[in-house]
Amino acid sequence: MAVGDISLPTTIHPISGVRLGVAKAHIRYADRHDLTIIEIDKNAAVAAITTQNQFCAAPVQLLRKHIQQSSPRYLLINTGNANAATGDDGYQRALATCQALAERASVAVSDVLPYSTGVIGETLPSEKIIAHLDTALADLAESHWLQAAHAICTTDTIAKVASERILVGDTVYHFTGISKGAGMIRPNMATMLGFVATDANIAPQLLNTMLKRLADESFNRISIDGDTSTNDCCTLIATAQSGTIINDENHPHYQPIYEALRRVFVRLATLIVRDGEGASKFITVKVTGGADTQQCADVAYSVAHSPLVKTAFFASDPNWGRILAAVGNAGVALQQSRVDVWLDEVAICQRGGLAVGYSEQAGAEVMRRPEITIHINLGQGEATDTVYTCDLSYDYVKINADYRS
Amino acid sequence: MAVGDISLPTTIHPISGVRLGVAKAHIRYADRHDLTIIEIDKNAAVAAITTQNQFCAAPVQLLRKHIQQSSPRYLLINTGNANAATGDDGYQRALATCQALAERASVAVSDVLPYSTGVIGETLPSEKIIAHLDTALADLAESHWLQAAHAICTTDTIAKVASERILVGDTVYHFTGISKGAGMIRPNMATMLGFVATDANIAPQLLNTMLKRLADESFNRISIDGDTSTNDCCTLIATAQSGTIINDENHPHYQPIYEALRRVFVRLATLIVRDGEGASKFITVKVTGGADTQQCADVAYSVAHSPLVKTAFFASDPNWGRILAAVGNAGVALQQSRVDVWLDEVAICQRGGLAVGYSEQAGAEVMRRPEITIHINLGQGEATDTVYTCDLSYDYVKINADYRS
Repeated sequence: MAVGDISLPTTIHPISGVRLGVAKAHIRYADRHDLTIIEIDKNAAVAAITTQNQFCAAPVQLLRKHIQQSSPRYLLINTGNANAATGDDGYQRALATCQALAERASVAVSDVLPYSTGVIGETLPSEKIIAHLDTALADLAESHWLQAAHAICTTDTIAKVASERILVGDTVYHFTGISKGAGMIRPNMATMLGFVATDANIAPQLLNTMLKRLADESFNRISIDGDTSTNDCCTLIATAQSGTIINDENHPHYQPIYEALRRVFVRLATLIVRDGEGASKFITVKVTGGADTQQCADVAYSVAHSPLVKTAFFASDPNWGRILAAVGNAGVALQQSRVDVWLDEVAICQRGGLAVGYSEQAGAEVMRRPEITIHINLGQGEATDTVYTCDLSYDYVKINADYRS
Repeated sequence: MAVGDISLPTTIHPISGVRLGVAKAHIRYADRHDLTIIEIDKNAAVAAITTQNQFCAAPVQLLRKHIQQSSPRYLLINTGNANAATGDDGYQRALATCQALAERASVAVSDVLPYSTGVIGETLPSEKIIAHLDTALADLAESHWLQAAHAICTTDTIAKVASERILVGDTVYHFTGISKGAGMIRPNMATMLGFVATDANIAPQLLNTMLKRLADESFNRISIDGDTSTNDCCTLIATAQSGTIINDENHPHYQPIYEALRRVFVRLATLIVRDGEGASKFITVKVTGGADTQQCADVAYSVAHSPLVKTAFFASDPNWGRILAAVGNAGVALQQSRVDVWLDEVAICQRGGLAVGYSEQAGAEVMRRPEITIHINLGQGEATDTVYTCDLSYDYVKINADYRS
């Protein structure tokens, strides 16, 4: 059961210069779209960041090589099989699918980036993917974002789409993205995937910098169980169909474009948390008053990763001692007497002790809400950071224990 | 339900120079021993290490101060209340209990070390502790280790005791210790506590070094849920009643004494894991072939902390993809093609891929055992390390979610 606001955008804006096509390749599921091609105009800039897991999958290894060599023209995405822990054979199969698509589209093999998500350790049925490339190519259309959002899912319960349109001066910019759930929360189902496109004209170097920053404010700020999958990838496309070239952060359009992209990225990332398996609460951990951002992130993650905090939220128990213990456990130098903590508007801890006027009743009332913000002020400086997480429920254990057995 | 071998030692050896006494102070529980005094001979050396949690409890703050000033003569331990997140009032109450004991025993207040374990954030009933000091003092005896092991428990289901006797040359050495469960696995119940004594004659400086090493091989190598409590303390006493002074590691008796202590420490630490709430499997994560010990520890902890690995063990599912993903997620540079993994005697992964000859049946057979070793060879060097953990079950969530609510 996904938590809270999981609605699709009222309008999903097509991005001029990006077309999407899907097909049923029968990779793992009998009768659903599981193969997606994203075609990118040749003038576009493309940036990608990939998992830091050292056991990264074959397609991730190949993607890293290809994006060094070319400006990507096609993204080739399959679900049902992660092609991870498959050795050299897995690498060759990923390469074969890229080659087959490159031939059909008359581009270089390095112009194709491969993405796989699904079961770890099984042989990729590359022949099935190749056999259905023509169907996916025939399906290419600027309007197929929602179809693609469904086709990249594994066991996600909702399609994840975000879309924005902004007017800056006389220029209209569009931003649309899709993502799929953190595989880490689904047994054997590897991968968070995110694809975001805009028609803005952003220089490749700047696009890379922006993607890194955007990911650090969104996909790198969510935690369901602290596991990082072997296949995580996030890709940002700027098709250069709208406005003039933006080379640096001083361009007057840069900031509004960055903010729109940030909203799209945060929405796509938080939809993954809202669809976290077993999740019954959506929790925002906001840390303020830090000496620097890293300190805030360390504290936020320590709280977001703590099984004791997460089970307390599942139980709607305002167990503030667990939150303080997690704050103290972040590996960050703190002065207890400067730390304040709130649950939404209710102060639970002031200067390291129980807040004056706090009542268990007020705490319990907040804890029953489906969306809760834990606000921790470290009382050291001006830095802030935010991490998004969910609770830890029976269903998390049930789903992850029952699968396969 | 504790897992596997949780038996008490056949003989619990008294340690000459250490006497233990218990009392019922009604701190939280109506009718059980919850107050313990450990009296130490004045010629003894004492070393202590304490939690790294920045929200460390009042008694931990006071203990750190006292051990700088004196050679401890009395350890004062209460359960039922952690005296954590209690501010200056908590500190004064801890101090008052030390003062009251110091007066009765005619020692300096800094000769008393305080330890508290139990609920976080509630006022320590110091008057109850003080009122029952005489009872505990009257109970002091060298033979009361088991009584103390019970009296320091909070919600542990078993008393945890280890005891050894060795003969080195013509000298007999004795080693006895007690511990209580990792509070991190018990809602609001803070603290791992460990107390170990020997009659060996070890110089204070060396004793400190030994305790640090011993803890790194035992209490610092267990993980139930990755949380570190506000009250963790481990104390090592050498009463100097047996043998000649040992000043450094070159003394011929050093190594056998260290090994005996290591066995006692590892037993006390692994008993905590075996008594981990909800635990149904005892898991040893052994990493070999590392470039250095830290690398091995990082990989072992990444596996031991992974909820996906732990739920797979709960389900007896030989889900090797989750183990590899956790290895890759350790933040350690690896070559996939050099990594081998075994579950007990069954090879599941060779050179980063599925092991030749592996069958799901063989994997499933191992996974049904109550005690399992995951052996990961990184193929990089000669270093090794070992971490002990348990599975993640419905009961873990149930216990931590139900408490208080």
